[in-house]
Amino acid sequence: MIKVAINGYGTIGKRVADAVAAQPDMEIIGVSKTSVSAEAYIAKERGYPLYIADLGRKPAFEKAGLEVAGDVETMLKAADIIVDATPGGVGEKNRPVYEKLGKKAIFQGGEEHEVAGFSFNAHANYKEAMGRQFARVVSCNTTGLVRLITAMDRAFGVERVRAVMIRRAADPDDIQRGPVDAIVLNPVTIPSHHGPDVQTILPSVNIVTLAMIVPTTLMHMHSVQIDLKRETTREEALKVLENHSRIGIVRKATGIKSNAQLREYTQDLGRPRTDLWENGVFEESVAVLNGREFYCFQAIHQEADVVPENVDCIRAMMGTVKDPEESIRTTNKALGLVAIG
Amino acid sequence: MIKVAINGYGTIGKRVADAVAAQPDMEIIGVSKTSVSAEAYIAKERGYPLYIADLGRKPAFEKAGLEVAGDVETMLKAADIIVDATPGGVGEKNRPVYEKLGKKAIFQGGEEHEVAGFSFNAHANYKEAMGRQFARVVSCNTTGLVRLITAMDRAFGVERVRAVMIRRAADPDDIQRGPVDAIVLNPVTIPSHHGPDVQTILPSVNIVTLAMIVPTTLMHMHSVQIDLKRETTREEALKVLENHSRIGIVRKATGIKSNAQLREYTQDLGRPRTDLWENGVFEESVAVLNGREFYCFQAIHQEADVVPENVDCIRAMMGTVKDPEESIRTTNKALGLVAIG
Amino acid sequence: MIKVAINGYGTIGKRVADAVAAQPDMEIIGVSKTSVSAEAYIAKERGYPLYIADLGRKPAFEKAGLEVAGDVETMLKAADIIVDATPGGVGEKNRPVYEKLGKKAIFQGGEEHEVAGFSFNAHANYKEAMGRQFARVVSCNTTGLVRLITAMDRAFGVERVRAVMIRRAADPDDIQRGPVDAIVLNPVTIPSHHGPDVQTILPSVNIVTLAMIVPTTLMHMHSVQIDLKRETTREEALKVLENHSRIGIVRKATGIKSNAQLREYTQDLGRPRTDLWENGVFEESVAVLNGREFYCFQAIHQEADVVPENVDCIRAMMGTVKDPEESIRTTNKALGLVAIG
Amino acid sequence: MIKVAINGYGTIGKRVADAVAAQPDMEIIGVSKTSVSAEAYIAKERGYPLYIADLGRKPAFEKAGLEVAGDVETMLKAADIIVDATPGGVGEKNRPVYEKLGKKAIFQGGEEHEVAGFSFNAHANYKEAMGRQFARVVSCNTTGLVRLITAMDRAFGVERVRAVMIRRAADPDDIQRGPVDAIVLNPVTIPSHHGPDVQTILPSVNIVTLAMIVPTTLMHMHSVQIDLKRETTREEALKVLENHSRIGIVRKATGIKSNAQLREYTQDLGRPRTDLWENGVFEESVAVLNGREFYCFQAIHQEADVVPENVDCIRAMMGTVKDPEESIRTTNKALGLVAIG
Repeated sequence: MIKVAINGYGTIGKRVADAVAAQPDMEIIGVSKTSVSAEAYIAKERGYPLYIADLGRKPAFEKAGLEVAGDVETMLKAADIIVDATPGGVGEKNRPVYEKLGKKAIFQGGEEHEVAGFSFNAHANYKEAMGRQFARVVSCNTTGLVRLITAMDRAFGVERVRAVMIRRAADPDDIQRGPVDAIVLNPVTIPSHHGPDVQTILPSVNIVTLAMIVPTTLMHMHSVQIDLKRETTREEALKVLENHSRIGIVRKATGIKSNAQLREYTQDLGRPRTDLWENGVFEESVAVLNGREFYCFQAIHQEADVVPENVDCIRAMMGTVKDPEESIRTTNKALGLVAIG
Repeated sequence: MIKVAINGYGTIGKRVADAVAAQPDMEIIGVSKTSVSAEAYIAKERGYPLYIADLGRKPAFEKAGLEVAGDVETMLKAADIIVDATPGGVGEKNRPVYEKLGKKAIFQGGEEHEVAGFSFNAHANYKEAMGRQFARVVSCNTTGLVRLITAMDRAFGVERVRAVMIRRAADPDDIQRGPVDAIVLNPVTIPSHHGPDVQTILPSVNIVTLAMIVPTTLMHMHSVQIDLKRETTREEALKVLENHSRIGIVRKATGIKSNAQLREYTQDLGRPRTDLWENGVFEESVAVLNGREFYCFQAIHQEADVVPENVDCIRAMMGTVKDPEESIRTTNKALGLVAIG
Repeated sequence: MIKVAINGYGTIGKRVADAVAAQPDMEIIGVSKTSVSAEAYIAKERGYPLYIADLGRKPAFEKAGLEVAGDVETMLKAADIIVDATPGGVGEKNRPVYEKLGKKAIFQGGEEHEVAGFSFNAHANYKEAMGRQFARVVSCNTTGLVRLITAMDRAFGVERVRAVMIRRAADPDDIQRGPVDAIVLNPVTIPSHHGPDVQTILPSVNIVTLAMIVPTTLMHMHSVQIDLKRETTREEALKVLENHSRIGIVRKATGIKSNAQLREYTQDLGRPRTDLWENGVFEESVAVLNGREFYCFQAIHQEADVVPENVDCIRAMMGTVKDPEESIRTTNKALGLVAIG
Repeated sequence: MIKVAINGYGTIGKRVADAVAAQPDMEIIGVSKTSVSAEAYIAKERGYPLYIADLGRKPAFEKAGLEVAGDVETMLKAADIIVDATPGGVGEKNRPVYEKLGKKAIFQGGEEHEVAGFSFNAHANYKEAMGRQFARVVSCNTTGLVRLITAMDRAFGVERVRAVMIRRAADPDDIQRGPVDAIVLNPVTIPSHHGPDVQTILPSVNIVTLAMIVPTTLMHMHSVQIDLKRETTREEALKVLENHSRIGIVRKATGIKSNAQLREYTQDLGRPRTDLWENGVFEESVAVLNGREFYCFQAIHQEADVVPENVDCIRAMMGTVKDPEESIRTTNKALGLVAIG
């Protein structure tokens, strides 16, 4: 059993913790939290040992009925590998600690590529992660793009990618961030930084991205246009997507045409936290125009799509499973990821 | 086993179906749907026999991979009791059908009191439902008010109730209804109709309600002020709420101060569809001023709080359980409703 | 003086009325309204004679202190030209009335091209409108695209256009329409109908459009990519936009990066109803990549950009001004449209 | 002419500047800004001399085409009175500067009462401001409550006030603040701080307030219940409101039932920046129940209702007009404030 510590039990950390705990070959040895909160109660409810950065706050936790297992360093020492799910920029500060302790660690997309020196996506470069001490699971948006581009590239060859990303403003439980009634160019300049972030995994892809923020909390939505190297048909393109183990097809018959309805659907399916771990490609949107122009809309659940990637990244870095498809299969099965369509 | 049919498998119907299926003394013999949709796939996934109003649409269902068990009348005939969860106003049209078939039926709060001639809340008037052919489970907002008022009345006596209800604009999967950026007086006139609706269950209560609609999808929020007949303290009032089997206390230590964070919490707890079946009373908000003025904020999950009431209403109307508390306990246990705080 | 009647005094109609009234060569002879409303009071405040479809409602208007000048047909007969600003689809039903009366009429973008048989944009095809009985001013989105494409085509030649349109959900005063928290693919299928609508004016342009609806009320936002026939630079492209009489440059120095801030700016400028009549192209977003790929973001004020087009269309159809640039200059000057940057 | 400086040319400052400039007895001698922004361009467009805190930034302003008149201290010295419209908390830091220069200054509601030692509302305590060096114009919400309570108290006597305030989340041009989809209890505790803030002007009033934040940008909405000392009727209560010079009645005939439609109406009326300077009381909502319970909904435009109060406060502090009603009349007339209904 691989011993995994979750440093930062928030939006991503709590999901990765449950995903790890569901795997046959991993266990959670602890999660960390800086202050008493709803999530600390969830850690207790799940039975995850709770570690805190500042033991001076232990009385506050205990007064709230929350047992503290020790300080964060104790947790890190006990782990084989650490998933750092702290807020963006904190991972960079934590890296020296992991180095000092000689521990493997996975950072999230809120960190720069250079923090880990290697950026990960299970379908694109699983094998390159093997044996590394550090890796970064790229952001939700980049993960979604890399999955789609890699799939289309293997099937038809990708000449250039043009993507417009409509980003959610805040996570559902974030009551601070807006906007309330605006479309925000983020950034105003074209292209956005998402293209170069894709290139940390796929260095040679010709990609231009644009990004806006809109007042929704549920999922990002990508409009993607790919010029293919080889001609194809809508049917063939759709088949490639259907056969991908982390792309789900949102079927026309469901009548779903928004991120809101899609989240209702994953909720009805009983998915934990209503998570959509896969790219949600809308069947009706898939188009091939002029023989080589591929188009689609895909929904990207910002809280969820990187979760299985973290799990696979653990296996790759630990070197316990050599075959990417085997790891992906194991991860998906443990999560209960079945085709949504 | 009580045989239950769900006529109208939508927002409420799909939840009542799962709640009924979870009970030890009931079973779902069928659910109805008018057209192919995401929810029809969920019925299939749950294994509920799917009935349709118009058999002419059977081929469309079958083409979509959805087996049709028969027409709605066939389903109704096979049931001991029908939960009518059709859109507001449709229940009234269905009543003659139920009468003709001699079937018991439960209507929802979207119908007028007169459609059933009896309005139900488990804590307030369970025993009066026994043996009836028709009952109406009052709306989510009315259910939330009745629970709170009944509890305070039994403990301290209620002199008058003044409640301002901030209503969600649309359910999370409803992409048609707004507003996007407005506070809508609904109605503009004071008082609103919610007070009289409470009086269908508690006829003698002195209540004035005001209502607005705001751009949120997650839960309603009530600001309630009750003038009590007897003086009390914050501690005593809080204790009454804590001991209520369908009121949950949102603890200060969780840091939750919005419907969004509360829904994240029920989601993290693994509640099906993130449902908050109980009134979510905010611990910090509970106040008793000037000895007899009770105040609190309570969150009301519009999709969920009527669900256990429907289950209890089935038992009361079927006459199989005489004691309200026994039914409530059975329902809560089957749902996995444990104190949220 | 050209005598103009506004049939439908709503979001567009009230703006066109004020714009017409501001012109040196036109006058408003009446506006129509079906029922008492806030806008009827505005018509009174402006001094526009108010006509109603159903004279049976005259007492209701009078009781509300609103004088009724007569029925709609009386108004139509007195006009040289009618601007039909009724809700989408009603214009089609009105056309036979205009035909019978032998009156010129302008329809809006909510009608099909075929209703008028000719679609209008001042910069693109002013002269073709001369002498016609019917014309359609294309929708706000199409107007915004046609302006931009025409400008780039004249300067550099346009090879192909790929545009993603992020549409506002509802107008600011519309409290019915949503969504509240969703990104809605509208349509889910790719391409959307906006491309063909552009082709009603620019038949030979190679254009693919995609469209989504998001919860904002203020303005649409377009992400536009144009492959040019000739190489150019960012500076040259920007200069073309700066010199266009209905394109405004949102300067970097203003710090504006959203439709909300842009509307605050037009409000601060004292624009009537905060209207942005021109395309709002964000200076920082203008990019030319790989020599021939032009990119920009542009804000399109759904309530306003078609207003000056209606004014120009009146002049063209009446044949009183032959030179498009002269009409555009006159319209802009009367509105007080000066460069926003 | 009273020489007025506006320290802080933002949401409130820019409005007060225009309101002051419109008065017959006042002039703007300068406004201050810390950095280049859209608002700095508006100051230029209006012809207000622009002063900056840090002259080191002068080149940045000049590069942007914005002339700098000097540093802030120069502006303050040239003024008879300063309106401090800096962000909340900054006024407190500025007070020693005003003291050192021996200048009169008006602070806004974002400052504590103690910063000025006197809180102002034109209808409630104009005369008490005469001759003072410092005063604070209370916040938009408090201003709205004080106007209403004072009016009802003078007419019928006020026994107790219970108000629930539904607050806008962010101003229209604020793209940072949320929430996007939540009702936030702010504060969770009952009562909120708004009651005590009313008591800085009306010390003896019995008031309990509750407050929530919702995702709208346009206006706050108050639900107010006042127990009166004397019995009255709806008609009499309405008459009191109609006769108040800073309360506007939103007439039933307009069909307006939301802050969004009300703002559209002030926009259509051509109000500068669509400002609603008065309380917007909804005619249909006005109710008197049980003889002495007064109810109403009122819209409070957070950006605007304090603007005329600042103007009156200037006159009172300068001592140039002794009669409050004379000042209010002069202010209203210069603004063009006429009854909205």
